Amino acid sequence: MKKIPVGILGATGMVGQNYITLLNDHPWFEVKYAAASPRSAGKKYRDAVAGRWQLKDSFNASVAEILVEDANDVGRAAAAKKRGDCSFVFSALEMGKDETRALEEAYAQAGIPVISNASAHRWTADVPVLIGEVNPHHADIIPLQQKSRGWDTGFIAVKPNCSIQSYMIPLHALAEAGYSAQRLIVTTMQAVSGAGYPGVPSLDMVDNIVPYIGGEEEKSEKEPLKIFGSIADGAFQNAAFPKISACCNRVPVVDGHTACVYLEFGEKKPSIDEIKKIWASFKALPQKEDFPFAPRQPIIYREEDNRPQPRKDRDADKAMAVVVGRLRPCNVFDVRFTALSHNTIRGAAGGGIMNAELLKFKGYLG
Amino acid sequence: MKKIPVGILGATGMVGQNYITLLNDHPWFEVKYAAASPRSAGKKYRDAVAGRWQLKDSFNASVAEILVEDANDVGRAAAAKKRGDCSFVFSALEMGKDETRALEEAYAQAGIPVISNASAHRWTADVPVLIGEVNPHHADIIPLQQKSRGWDTGFIAVKPNCSIQSYMIPLHALAEAGYSAQRLIVTTMQAVSGAGYPGVPSLDMVDNIVPYIGGEEEKSEKEPLKIFGSIADGAFQNAAFPKISACCNRVPVVDGHTACVYLEFGEKKPSIDEIKKIWASFKALPQKEDFPFAPRQPIIYREEDNRPQPRKDRDADKAMAVVVGRLRPCNVFDVRFTALSHNTIRGAAGGGIMNAELLKFKGYLG
Amino acid sequence: MKKIPVGILGATGMVGQNYITLLNDHPWFEVKYAAASPRSAGKKYRDAVAGRWQLKDSFNASVAEILVEDANDVGRAAAAKKRGDCSFVFSALEMGKDETRALEEAYAQAGIPVISNASAHRWTADVPVLIGEVNPHHADIIPLQQKSRGWDTGFIAVKPNCSIQSYMIPLHALAEAGYSAQRLIVTTMQAVSGAGYPGVPSLDMVDNIVPYIGGEEEKSEKEPLKIFGSIADGAFQNAAFPKISACCNRVPVVDGHTACVYLEFGEKKPSIDEIKKIWASFKALPQKEDFPFAPRQPIIYREEDNRPQPRKDRDADKAMAVVVGRLRPCNVFDVRFTALSHNTIRGAAGGGIMNAELLKFKGYLG
Amino acid sequence: MKKIPVGILGATGMVGQNYITLLNDHPWFEVKYAAASPRSAGKKYRDAVAGRWQLKDSFNASVAEILVEDANDVGRAAAAKKRGDCSFVFSALEMGKDETRALEEAYAQAGIPVISNASAHRWTADVPVLIGEVNPHHADIIPLQQKSRGWDTGFIAVKPNCSIQSYMIPLHALAEAGYSAQRLIVTTMQAVSGAGYPGVPSLDMVDNIVPYIGGEEEKSEKEPLKIFGSIADGAFQNAAFPKISACCNRVPVVDGHTACVYLEFGEKKPSIDEIKKIWASFKALPQKEDFPFAPRQPIIYREEDNRPQPRKDRDADKAMAVVVGRLRPCNVFDVRFTALSHNTIRGAAGGGIMNAELLKFKGYLG
Repeated sequence: MKKIPVGILGATGMVGQNYITLLNDHPWFEVKYAAASPRSAGKKYRDAVAGRWQLKDSFNASVAEILVEDANDVGRAAAAKKRGDCSFVFSALEMGKDETRALEEAYAQAGIPVISNASAHRWTADVPVLIGEVNPHHADIIPLQQKSRGWDTGFIAVKPNCSIQSYMIPLHALAEAGYSAQRLIVTTMQAVSGAGYPGVPSLDMVDNIVPYIGGEEEKSEKEPLKIFGSIADGAFQNAAFPKISACCNRVPVVDGHTACVYLEFGEKKPSIDEIKKIWASFKALPQKEDFPFAPRQPIIYREEDNRPQPRKDRDADKAMAVVVGRLRPCNVFDVRFTALSHNTIRGAAGGGIMNAELLKFKGYLG
Repeated sequence: MKKIPVGILGATGMVGQNYITLLNDHPWFEVKYAAASPRSAGKKYRDAVAGRWQLKDSFNASVAEILVEDANDVGRAAAAKKRGDCSFVFSALEMGKDETRALEEAYAQAGIPVISNASAHRWTADVPVLIGEVNPHHADIIPLQQKSRGWDTGFIAVKPNCSIQSYMIPLHALAEAGYSAQRLIVTTMQAVSGAGYPGVPSLDMVDNIVPYIGGEEEKSEKEPLKIFGSIADGAFQNAAFPKISACCNRVPVVDGHTACVYLEFGEKKPSIDEIKKIWASFKALPQKEDFPFAPRQPIIYREEDNRPQPRKDRDADKAMAVVVGRLRPCNVFDVRFTALSHNTIRGAAGGGIMNAELLKFKGYLG
Repeated sequence: MKKIPVGILGATGMVGQNYITLLNDHPWFEVKYAAASPRSAGKKYRDAVAGRWQLKDSFNASVAEILVEDANDVGRAAAAKKRGDCSFVFSALEMGKDETRALEEAYAQAGIPVISNASAHRWTADVPVLIGEVNPHHADIIPLQQKSRGWDTGFIAVKPNCSIQSYMIPLHALAEAGYSAQRLIVTTMQAVSGAGYPGVPSLDMVDNIVPYIGGEEEKSEKEPLKIFGSIADGAFQNAAFPKISACCNRVPVVDGHTACVYLEFGEKKPSIDEIKKIWASFKALPQKEDFPFAPRQPIIYREEDNRPQPRKDRDADKAMAVVVGRLRPCNVFDVRFTALSHNTIRGAAGGGIMNAELLKFKGYLG
Repeated sequence: MKKIPVGILGATGMVGQNYITLLNDHPWFEVKYAAASPRSAGKKYRDAVAGRWQLKDSFNASVAEILVEDANDVGRAAAAKKRGDCSFVFSALEMGKDETRALEEAYAQAGIPVISNASAHRWTADVPVLIGEVNPHHADIIPLQQKSRGWDTGFIAVKPNCSIQSYMIPLHALAEAGYSAQRLIVTTMQAVSGAGYPGVPSLDMVDNIVPYIGGEEEKSEKEPLKIFGSIADGAFQNAAFPKISACCNRVPVVDGHTACVYLEFGEKKPSIDEIKKIWASFKALPQKEDFPFAPRQPIIYREEDNRPQPRKDRDADKAMAVVVGRLRPCNVFDVRFTALSHNTIRGAAGGGIMNAELLKFKGYLG
């Protein structure tokens, strides 16, 4: 199969670097186009990231030679599309919200699908917030989006915030089995890579934690309702449940967000053993269709008392699986458990890539 | 005033070291007796702790010369009492639960009051679990304890687990104002000093957290009910509320346990502003009587979004104050907040010393 | 004694905050004037630092109310001097080198002595780089500086870089006893507070060290030669020895710079025991005259194998003592040892304050 | 090719776990035998390590089912050899030195080659201390060892201490090009995994470093002389140079030992550029023969100011390459640089496996 040529917007930033390395050997996609801020424009990719590279893994020789374009110049991408170098883009833009929203729309308008990591469009009524295992059917809004916007091949699809990834799949697996969460209290302990680079100062993370991450709790409380929602009249209707209350903390961990979850079901309540069985056997579209970035088992349950732990569990199954442990009855709600997912892979670039795989599978990427 | 001579059981361990340094300049008490394991017995204190000293502060010259006794030999302490060197003891014993329970009883039997840090007697029906600001009246059980046990001057009083200290005083202040908590969900992020030395391996605390602390959640859920309970027929009756569900995590912080608390009141619910006012004005017996270790203001509320933080807030007011922040409405319960207290001072040796001050004030320490 | 009113330039930055808290109860000096960037000018000090305060200790109520001035406006300080609110200033300016140099000169020109933390004037030929225990006689250049510059009461004196503090006093004590270092190799492991706030990103300091600190090695190699130098013709002449080679590393420690030092003497070589005796008995002018910030024993030697350690030893004697350990023969040079000093107190604000005490004692501060 | 069956002594410890995972897909070797302490004997491997597993990667299904033997029972290994399950063993024993020495000899006596990670035999005169890129010819002593000991197929070969790995290959490359180091000063900053599990307490590694690692400096100073030495009369003769002085520090890093090296050559001195060229082009036997665990380029030089860094560079080329940076002139010696290697892979199990590859290539493993 000839690989589909893709572009990265924000290619020199931290999420952009993750896209680049994760796509190094992707069987379907190949990075042929890279855009970033005007400061990087005109440089070879390897020169643009010299001294700013944050990852252990490096990039392909072919990527090193790509001339970085100005991400604000949509025309360059349109030209690249024409010459067969950019079928769609992953957006890892790090601008202001309004700017990002407008720019992503301009790419879509120019016929280039945008699969975005940014939060700018998460609350746009006709933009799907996709998790491959949870709401792949939300991609069905894309033709409606294209029609109402007057876009032909372009569209916008986004992924949710990294902090909710670890429990959305477990919640969805239970809901599918008939056990819907009604109320949810969650405390997260989030890795510093979530704030990018330079991000969190080390003076805040040596012998310390910070009990606050700006905007994170609001996102954690609202995004699940859209993801669990439905499409009506070309727009998403939020689900009414679960009610969520979140406290988000920053801890001195490089990668891997951990969540302590307290859960109340509706009238029908599963036993602890039932929950474990539901999680162990859960497979969804990405598993059934064997997408390249799909974890074989999306929910890994560990029986040890002291797991999941970020350093030991975050890389499970290409860092795309969610690792859960400590499931037990709750004195206040029904059950509680601890869940972990890799925030820069499952929660960012890896999740974005699997979204592209889903959209390719569904026929939206040409 | 002539100082009261006190002894430390388990004087060479980490909590014992904290007692020693915190008592360096205490206006009422003076360390004149130290006991530890047989291995340390017979050595001068300074030799017994050489190479094992963990703290920044050192100990008084007079303590350095004390000959450490075998803690199992109650007779040595009784003799010290007779010669005026040990009116009562602080117990920081680190043995098994049954052993500790029996040994503390033997000291009490020998006429020596035991103010204990150990968890062994927390669930003994006639032993008070004291927090000076919350349940000083629980000391009233002491004469009943002495009578039923056949002890004359000896008795046992203990302090609760370090992980609940940060929210017990805030909860009590609200209850006193008429707003009792009915349900409480709490996630803690606890410092490594809570596990003693060597304690938690560094391989678990570099780029990692551990979502489990053995026994901690059970203590966090049960102890508050005794502390909020009442005395009937010479024994404590647990309060029925609040129902508590706790998840306890270990994080790479030296000192200071942080708690994210989600709180549901009964029918009567305070506003956010009311709560802040109640906390700001809260003073209890230790403040009114100006005990040496009492924080002037037991609950310090910080308005900044990103506080309390362990490294910056744990030492507030001699490390005896509780620092609270982020009070806001909760989507699921009524309110939520984040609270912090110093686990080895307020939560261990400092709390024990203030308990002794309380018991001295109440006339139980001769 | 009426306290001398002092000003802080750069009062809202991290070093400025340290000056403010360390001077809270100083017996000779009292902060009455604070200047910072135009952004802070016009605000009360407490408002100017709200949300930016980095320290555990807070500031005096009187400081909270000071109206912060624009540090660029020397006239405001001159006016403050006239009305008795600013006899001299501590400079903790964080501007560019040229700007700092010019601005400090403007204050001196305006009659206001400047005791500076900044590196801008360390290589100015007539500006002394003072360590109270090492080269207090270098203050003698001040009248020459004033004369050649045409300044009346103003002058400039600075302190050296924080990374060399831990071994300069030990080296000087040996030199005074006749054992001068000829060659010195030193590897430092430096705390993150040395880079200010936000300073070093946490992504560089979780499960990592950084083997480089810009400019630090050059300073470490050159500054000792000026400090060990002499005055001739109104200017400092560098000492020829020791030759120094330094590697400076950043490690995840909050405060406290550690140095592994390898030392070659001239022909006369002391024994290990002799060195320990020299260090143990070393006292200099600050000790003899009992300056408020002088450590009673400037060099504390610890016999334990595994000391000094930053967290346990940095606060020794008000964080103004140097703690040394592991002295032993060297297979390549003569001896080696490990030394530690607190970088933001002894190495920055505390050192600056002791310099002011020295200059007050010598009669240069009115 | 049929894989050679190998055994692991100390298979459940931390180094043993590394051997197990690194051999998961080895093209030449296959783990068929595992031995550990009597406590583990009789259990399936997966049960013996349950709750003690420290690594991210897991082990093959076939290894999970191996019945762990008592490592003290050499007869079990001999029987395994006979039935074709254990051609040789990797020793990761964690007993006392004398015990280890005797036990490894018993395996060799029983006809089983021992490729050891333990330090017990590093100073045995006829046992080679091998680094594949430096002294592969030292394997030539094996026939002499076998003859003088009266062993037939058995023998003992060891690898050096992990802390010297990062600079031995760079030094050897220079020596081979005619630039031999005469004097060497080195300060190491070593990862906590080097101490095993539980190893270093977290109270020593949060906001702290420890300037001491027992025995490490002696090993760092002596082992290079044997590795650079020659064989005479069936025993190793140490090289006379370089003289080495080492200070070894523990820092809060999971994996990766960093060394700051100061180097003095003999009369012939290379330029900085020459050194870089020598390192860039250096290849040795493992590269020429393309051993499975050989890094393609054993010395990777990074031009960035702030590299190598443990988290970003330790995994270079399967964690078997040495990463060097900051090469520059030294004010005291000739040059200085910073070097890094992965201590549990290149410095332990990975190095042991490459030694086995070397010995297989040389025909000593049947």
